[in-house]
Formats: sequence, structure tokens, C-alpha cells
Amino acid sequence: MAAAPQPVYWLGNDTLRVSAALFAENRGRLCRGLKAKDGVESKSVVVLQGGEQKQRYCTDTDVVFRQESFFHWAFGVTEPDCYGAIDVDSGKSILFVPKLPESYATWMGEIFPKEHFMAKYAVDEVQYTCDRGQNTDSGSICREASFEGISRFKVNNTLLHPVIVECRLVKTDMELEVLRYTNRISSEAHKMIMKHVKPGQKEYEMESLFQHYCYNKGGMRHTSYTCICGTGNNSSILHYGHAGAPNDKQIEDGDMCLFDMGGEYYCYSSDITCSFPANGKFTPNQRAIYEAVLKSSRTVMAAIKPGVKWSEMHRLADRVHLEELVKMGILHGSVEDMLKVHLGSIFMPHGLGHLLGIDVHDVGGYPEGVERIDEPGLRSLRMGRPVQERMVLTVEPGIYFINHLLDQALANPAQSCFINNQVLARFRGFGGVRIEDDIAVTASGVELLTCVPRTVEEIEAFMADSAKPFSPVV
Amino acid sequence: MAAAPQPVYWLGNDTLRVSAALFAENRGRLCRGLKAKDGVESKSVVVLQGGEQKQRYCTDTDVVFRQESFFHWAFGVTEPDCYGAIDVDSGKSILFVPKLPESYATWMGEIFPKEHFMAKYAVDEVQYTCDRGQNTDSGSICREASFEGISRFKVNNTLLHPVIVECRLVKTDMELEVLRYTNRISSEAHKMIMKHVKPGQKEYEMESLFQHYCYNKGGMRHTSYTCICGTGNNSSILHYGHAGAPNDKQIEDGDMCLFDMGGEYYCYSSDITCSFPANGKFTPNQRAIYEAVLKSSRTVMAAIKPGVKWSEMHRLADRVHLEELVKMGILHGSVEDMLKVHLGSIFMPHGLGHLLGIDVHDVGGYPEGVERIDEPGLRSLRMGRPVQERMVLTVEPGIYFINHLLDQALANPAQSCFINNQVLARFRGFGGVRIEDDIAVTASGVELLTCVPRTVEEIEAFMADSAKPFSPVV
Repeated sequence: MAAAPQPVYWLGNDTLRVSAALFAENRGRLCRGLKAKDGVESKSVVVLQGGEQKQRYCTDTDVVFRQESFFHWAFGVTEPDCYGAIDVDSGKSILFVPKLPESYATWMGEIFPKEHFMAKYAVDEVQYTCDRGQNTDSGSICREASFEGISRFKVNNTLLHPVIVECRLVKTDMELEVLRYTNRISSEAHKMIMKHVKPGQKEYEMESLFQHYCYNKGGMRHTSYTCICGTGNNSSILHYGHAGAPNDKQIEDGDMCLFDMGGEYYCYSSDITCSFPANGKFTPNQRAIYEAVLKSSRTVMAAIKPGVKWSEMHRLADRVHLEELVKMGILHGSVEDMLKVHLGSIFMPHGLGHLLGIDVHDVGGYPEGVERIDEPGLRSLRMGRPVQERMVLTVEPGIYFINHLLDQALANPAQSCFINNQVLARFRGFGGVRIEDDIAVTASGVELLTCVPRTVEEIEAFMADSAKPFSPVV
Repeated sequence: MAAAPQPVYWLGNDTLRVSAALFAENRGRLCRGLKAKDGVESKSVVVLQGGEQKQRYCTDTDVVFRQESFFHWAFGVTEPDCYGAIDVDSGKSILFVPKLPESYATWMGEIFPKEHFMAKYAVDEVQYTCDRGQNTDSGSICREASFEGISRFKVNNTLLHPVIVECRLVKTDMELEVLRYTNRISSEAHKMIMKHVKPGQKEYEMESLFQHYCYNKGGMRHTSYTCICGTGNNSSILHYGHAGAPNDKQIEDGDMCLFDMGGEYYCYSSDITCSFPANGKFTPNQRAIYEAVLKSSRTVMAAIKPGVKWSEMHRLADRVHLEELVKMGILHGSVEDMLKVHLGSIFMPHGLGHLLGIDVHDVGGYPEGVERIDEPGLRSLRMGRPVQERMVLTVEPGIYFINHLLDQALANPAQSCFINNQVLARFRGFGGVRIEDDIAVTASGVELLTCVPRTVEEIEAFMADSAKPFSPVV
């Protein structure tokens, strides 16, 4: 008998089809990973709890649901309030779905039978969550006979986390396909922004347009994180865009734009930053800083391959930045000596990049035994282990002029001796430049997932071209 | 000395300016309301806790912050993790803001002094939340001397809720101005959808376009609730659009669209439903159902005035629906008798409408002593009290063909005797029609806040007009 065709998640039009086989493969990998561990008893069962539908504070206003990441990785289920179980020996999967009251059919839609979910998610069995039984005195959930494995598993619940984290760290072909898609759509959205930005607009208009493109064209109801649309000096605020600084400045002629935005499809992330002048034409200062960052980006990318230490890649970016800042006259002296006093972290206080997957800061950066390096800059690095094949990472070097960090450095004789304050003064209020791409590590190097104009010439030509190949998004 | 000009919340361009005086007035009303109550001691202080910045599950991915509604009503503060105190006797207001670590300046932006928040929110005093002191053993928060009033208030914390709820129920002129704005922008967004919808699109494209218009043009980062974009049979699912039914159907020629969407500006809501044929042209059946609902909408609106019982308005809508369904031949017999067996709730299982304000289902619908009427339909009514001036309400009658409710009615001899099943069968799969407007109750009637094409002729003319007065939103 031929295998039944796998069901597919698809939002229609040009959106990506994702086979349920992606999650079946993940479950299989998890079982193999667990069986390879000492201490996993036979007849073990993995139980994962899906995300719950939440409301705003004490109101009945639902927050748009986004699935919990581990549960998504293993089951790909879009509905809230589910559980999943995986029998480690056999790989058999059981999905637990809520038993819905009849009123659901009026308010929320058709109540599907268990067979619907079996077919939709290609699991071996579907049960209702309520069939686990509930203690009428304590209110706590009891497991019925078929769930004996759960209590055994709970005893060993320290085992699951490191194994599933290692599985999530290494992306399968099917997962890479989804991450290529999230990158393609988000890249297109960034390009559209570059075509449409102009002085006089508000930063949040760019956030709105990005979100609209990603959802309308790409089926992405969520972004991977809050959009960062910093212009002018705001481009030096690393996590700009939050409620205290909600992308509400007017974009001015002469501003650098730093737009860090990524769409999310079926819970898979993207994380892309484009930096460019709001008016489409780099000033000499803007060009100099931009090309310094681009050089570090491309130098690092050329060096990444399995076995390389990620912390060394961070240091390499720092070195390139410092060399370029010397050429510009902002710094003077020996780059080796600057590195010893961590001068690079004044200009790039964040880490070079992080793992990417179902979470934008994906899990697995510091497994047990790998410690953060407690140095400026490096202590912000979200991954401390050697690079390995099938990791997906962001490469996001940046140079920022952050007043309070510059003042700190100027007040520190060990650092100020390298700074030409007269030249530096010209860059106060400049903001910053970040160039962020997503890459997949291959056997010998990297696959670049992000596709946006990157050189100064490409950006200027792209923004100048009034032919605007992007149709209006409405 | 002239009063200092009040600071203003404004997102630039054509977005609304909202004076901080709106919140000062609310605080004043709350103090007066409390002083009028027995049991409020002198030197009482009201303490409100603002919303907290939340993350997705166990990740560091921030959820876009939305302020808690009571705190917003009293302070209009956009930042998370604040508290507010109001001295009831003097009306003096104190805002507590988090004391931010130096690293905030790098990652999140400028650290503003207390004076910044005093000026931004026109409060009398600003303190840091940490200045309340923390018990080093228990970890629980202690109040310092200046907060003695808080502990006294806690003893009386049952007093605050009903008073602040009554204050929120009655909208001030300044609040009405914001609700007019949210309605205007959301109405424009709905009109834009009507211009752009066409068979072949996905429902979620309409959600995306609506959100984009509201944010891009109106500065609305949030919608008031998850967009409901039901087409075809989905238009009979009252709360369609959630994660289990995420607006993912393709819009077909011949479908009715029921789009229930509202933007939110500075935490004030709107809640509007437009129903129309996807292809712009009503079929005779669509016209008949639509005009029945429009008749009940306009009949109810003409009847609303201070003193009227809201439950009677619901019953009035039911009566009009039943009369019209008799004219169509779907029902036959005495409408009076139909009302006795609650036949109206088969076609409109939800309530006629609800209070609207900072929450889309605003507070105050059932104060102590007002009980829900335990009858089909009416038990879903979110407000049980007489209408009063300055209430803002939705009026949202609807007729839906919900298979499981129709089957229930047909299985119930007390109801099936009124149903002409042969005619009804023609409407299976039709979906539903809802017409939802937001109104403010005036001294003698209502002010209609929503402005969209409503008659069949208006809708057909508007959708047919290819001149499309709405510029592309990019």
C-alpha cells in the first residue's frame, strides 16, 4: 500500500506549502535523540503542552494566538489549548485536543471530529484533553491508564529539554525550506519599504507597510518580533520600536534608516535589518560607516564554516570595524591594543548574531558546559558554541554612535587614548548602521537566505529607480 | 498665572490629538465619585497598577504592549510597568515609573528624568516604582511612609471597582471625541475594503488591508479585537477569525462578506461590521436578508434614548427579524407566538449590542443588582441596564443561518411549527448578515459614530464606482 499523501499547511495564493512530514521528521529525530541518551527508560512518553489562548488582562478580548515553539516544532498544530504525546519506542504520536462545547459551533465555528485532526496533522491518534480525567477535589489533572508513561516521564523531565533543544538547533531540509520562504517574503517587504520611504513619513508607517506586505502576500499573521523602525538618532537604539519608543518619529531628509523587521510563517522566523538613507542617497559619512559594516559582514560570512568558533566571528567583526574607524580618522593607534580594551563594544555593544528558527532568538546557544564570555560585547552574544552544519544564524554587525557609551569611553583613559574626539563629534546624532542577514551553515560555508540590495551602489540604484517593480499592495 | 498648556498625545500627520486633560478629568470624576460614597475615609488614595510587558511563553520575544484599561483611563500612560496613585481628597496624582538601568540607554533608548513624565502626562508628581521599598526576606513590596494611604485603601478595595466602572460607563466630551475618531478611521478602512474586495482573494488579505489602513493612516497599532473576516458560510460564525479559523478561506463569487473589524487609537476602541456581497451585487436572497437586518438596526436606533431598557431593544430587533422572515416565507404564523418560544435567538443567538470604550466589551453592563435574563439570546446580552446619556454602545443586529441551531429548532416542535423548511433550505450555507454601528446616547436619542454605506443601493453604488476615491495605502 502506498503511503497516504501528507497533509499540507497552506494559506493559498503564493504562500508556501508545508508538509506535515516536517513535524513527523522532527518527532522521529527527537525519539532517536532520546533513545541515544542514558537514563531514558523503555516505554517512555514525551508530553508537550501547547500554548493557551490568552486574553488582555481581565477582559474577554483575545490576544491573537501564537503557538508555543517546542509544541509547534513537534506537531505543527495551529489551534490553542492542545497537548501532544510521543511514544519514544514506537514514535507513535497522540494529539490531545479540547472537547468543545456545543456553543462553540455558534460562536467559533464547526466542531471537527477527532478524525479531522488526525488527517490535518498526520498524527497516529487523537484524543480529547478532558479524557485525561480530573480530580474532583483538588482540581488537578490525573492521567488515565494509557498515560502511565507521563508520570514516568515527569521523573525524567530534565532529559527532554537538552535533547529537544539540540534537535531544534539543527535544521532539517524541510525546515530550511520554510526559513528560505520567510526570508524571501521579508526581503521583498524590505525592498518595498526602500522603494516607498520618503522624508515626512512617520516611522510607524513603515512598520505598518512591512506587516501588511508580509501578511497580504506571505500569509504571515505575526512578525517574529516587534518591528524596529529607527531613523536619525533612533537608529542607534538597538531595540527601538517598543511601547516606550514606538516608531513614532517623523522621518527627516538626511536621516539614516535602520529597519529591523522579520515576518513569521507557520511559526518560523526571519530577522533582517536594512540600513539606508531616507532620501536614497548616502552622504560621505553615511557611506563610510555603511561600507565599514558591510565589510565586516562580508568578511565574517566568508569565514563562517562548521567548526569555527562563533565568538571568534564576533571578534573578527570588531576587528574590521576598528580598522575601518581608523581609516576614517575616528580612531587612531593600534587595533590590537584597541581590542585588548574592548573598544569595539563601544561601537557594537550587541552580539554578532544569534540562532534563528521557530524563535527569533532560537534555543541552543549555550548548552550545559558552554559559558558566556564575560567581556563587553561578547557577553551579549546569544550563542557561545562552535558553528555547525544546518545551524541557521543571523549575521548582524553594526556600528552605532550611542552618546552614553561614547561618553563612557571618553571618560576612560584606556579607551579615550584611541579616540579622535574632533572627528567623532561629527558623528554624534548620526545614529547607527546594522546589516543583518540570515544564513544557513553548509558543509563548507554558508547559504545566504536574505536577498536585499546590500552595496551602496545597489541601494542607491534600487531606491532611485522610479519604475517601482513592486505593485501596490492593496 | 495662566494654566500651562496641556500636553497632547499625537502620532503626527492626520492622527488625532488627545489632550492629557482627558485623563485629568477622569481622575477628578473618580475622586468625586468616591467622595460621594459612604465608607471612603478621608486621606484615601487610589492605587492603580499599569500593564506589564509580557513575552511569548518562555522566550525573550516581547508581545507588543497594550496598556491595562483602568490604568489607561486614569493616566493615559503608554509605557509598561507603571503604577499610579490618586489622592482622593486633593485629586493629586502621582505616577510611578520604573527606574531603568543604564543599559536601557543602549538597548531601549533615552532614559528620561522624572520631569519628562510629569510634563508628558501632566501629573502632579512622578516617583520611581523602586522607591516603594522591598522586603528582603519575603520579596513582597512594602510601601514607604508617603504611601500609608495605599494600605488603608487596600482595606477598602471593594469600593473602587464599582465607582470607577460607573465613571468609565459615562463618556466625557473628550472621550467621545476619541471614539468619533476611531469610528471615522475604521469606517474609512471598511470602505476601502469594500472598494478592493474581489472573489479569488483570501479573507486574511482583507484583515491585513484593514489593519494597514488603520495603522498607516490612523496611527492605530492595535485593533480592538481579532478581525472577523467571514465569507460565504463563515459569515455565520459569530467569532470567526481566531486561531482555529483564521480568516483563511478564499473569497468566492456569490459569497456574502461579513467583516467585523475595529481599530484602536490610544486604547480607545471601535467595533464595526459591514456585510455585503463579495462581487458587489446583492442576489434577491441576499438583499432580502440584508434589508431585514437593516430594518431592525434602524428601528432599534430610532427607539434608543435615555431610560429605554436595553433588553427591550434586543427584543425589538428580534421582533423585526421575525416579521421580515415571515414576509420572506421562511417563517409562518404569529410573531407573538414565535417570541414566546424565543425563535428569534435561532437567527440571532448573540446580544443586540454592548458597551464600548477603552475595552471593546466595555465595563459596566451588569452592576450589582442587575441580573442577566436567562433566556436564549438575551442571556448573551452584555448589558442589562437601562440606556443612559453618554453611554457608547454597539447596535449590531444580525440574521444567521447556523446549521446546528436550525437543526435544533427543526427538532423542537414548539419552534419547528413556524418554520417553512423548504424555503429555509434555500438559505443553508448562505452564512449571515450583521450590521454593526457604534452609537453615543444623547439626551434625546443617539449620535451615530459609524459612517459607512448601509443601504443596498448605497453599497452597490459604492462598490461599483471604479473611480475608487481611496488612494492606494502605500
